[in-house]
Amino acid sequence: MVREMLSEMVDKGLVSQTGLISHGRGEAFDYLMGERTLPAALLAEKAAAAYLLGAARPVICVNGNAAALARMNLINLAEQIPAKIEVNIFHRTEERMDLLIEYMEETGAEVLGRDPDASIPGLSSDRALCTSEGIFRSDVILVPIEDGDRAQALTKMGKVVISIDINPLSRTSKTATVSICDEITRAVENIIGFVQDMKGRPDEILKTIRSYNNDEAREETVNEICSFLRSEVRRG
Amino acid sequence: MVREMLSEMVDKGLVSQTGLISHGRGEAFDYLMGERTLPAALLAEKAAAAYLLGAARPVICVNGNAAALARMNLINLAEQIPAKIEVNIFHRTEERMDLLIEYMEETGAEVLGRDPDASIPGLSSDRALCTSEGIFRSDVILVPIEDGDRAQALTKMGKVVISIDINPLSRTSKTATVSICDEITRAVENIIGFVQDMKGRPDEILKTIRSYNNDEAREETVNEICSFLRSEVRRG
Repeated sequence: MVREMLSEMVDKGLVSQTGLISHGRGEAFDYLMGERTLPAALLAEKAAAAYLLGAARPVICVNGNAAALARMNLINLAEQIPAKIEVNIFHRTEERMDLLIEYMEETGAEVLGRDPDASIPGLSSDRALCTSEGIFRSDVILVPIEDGDRAQALTKMGKVVISIDINPLSRTSKTATVSICDEITRAVENIIGFVQDMKGRPDEILKTIRSYNNDEAREETVNEICSFLRSEVRRG
Repeated sequence: MVREMLSEMVDKGLVSQTGLISHGRGEAFDYLMGERTLPAALLAEKAAAAYLLGAARPVICVNGNAAALARMNLINLAEQIPAKIEVNIFHRTEERMDLLIEYMEETGAEVLGRDPDASIPGLSSDRALCTSEGIFRSDVILVPIEDGDRAQALTKMGKVVISIDINPLSRTSKTATVSICDEITRAVENIIGFVQDMKGRPDEILKTIRSYNNDEAREETVNEICSFLRSEVRRG
């Protein structure tokens, strides 16, 4: 069902064909996790909620795949924090930018990205474009399904980068401050749960941020994937 | 480069959009193997060559992704064995069947599949269609990037099924007689090498078939993937 839906989104121009390949890579990792949130990912999702609540200028980035798979959840998350939403895509065309912004806005949400007036340093032309009101001045930024170059460039700007990338070994996951290795809809739903739970509790927010160790979480993710693989191959 | 090429093949109607997602899943597994043929896969590739050389009626199946990624290698393999080639696709339309058969035939190869006159038992309508000259009467069949239902149905017909599916835990890999867990172009090139080496050596062919253990090879594949994952996550 998800595959058919994404395929329709390609026909409408919202998702790129390479977005389909990227989704397939995600499916493979999801499969290796038994299609569930691993304990290590849940820790990352709680840390993400804490960072977003503790931020002065939190921003949620949205690209084609993120919009297709988790539009309402991302908008819901932005409202609860509250955070700004900015559309930002890898294969940038003005047409696809407009389509995506309209697709997000038809829900009533306010969305940045239409008139970029700033650039992320270290990225080539199109990929660097963003708004100063949103991505450029953000202190904490959630990037679902982001490419490695941009994740690195945002980290270099001194931002807290929270990635949702199901591959624990991707450059994005290796670069991010908080690397959530989980399927996007599950991830965003879990973050929303933690945001609702921690909102207005600054001590809990601080404690969560302090106790989180991203390298440990990524290593634990790999251990959990290996346990799953070994048990599955024996089931023959 | 491969992604752009596949994307063009979608525009031409040779590869389906869900074929792109399937390719993405393959990319993820290839990544987990360090983008190289694992020792266990090489054993499977040698066994595949032996089964194909020992067969009375060997057939090589070709679908959209297989044609896009390995057309010349598959034709070359078919010539060396020699084996018949039959086009057989998951999302069957007469238009895409014709396009794929033409795409294979423009190299001068002879290709079956245009006029199906037989059915694989246990599969629903479209997916069951095949030719009696090819798939239906084959004793050994190579299925690159095959779906699980068809792999199972072919096995139930009593055929030796050789799959090329990079996921060692897929239903196809679990079902096949010889499960090659490798990227398709590497896999077919390696099989060609072994065919050239074993051709005309019936003792070597028999010895290879007898000593091959598919369950062991799949388990070894998983162990090798886990070693790679663990070393990669530590490299930070």
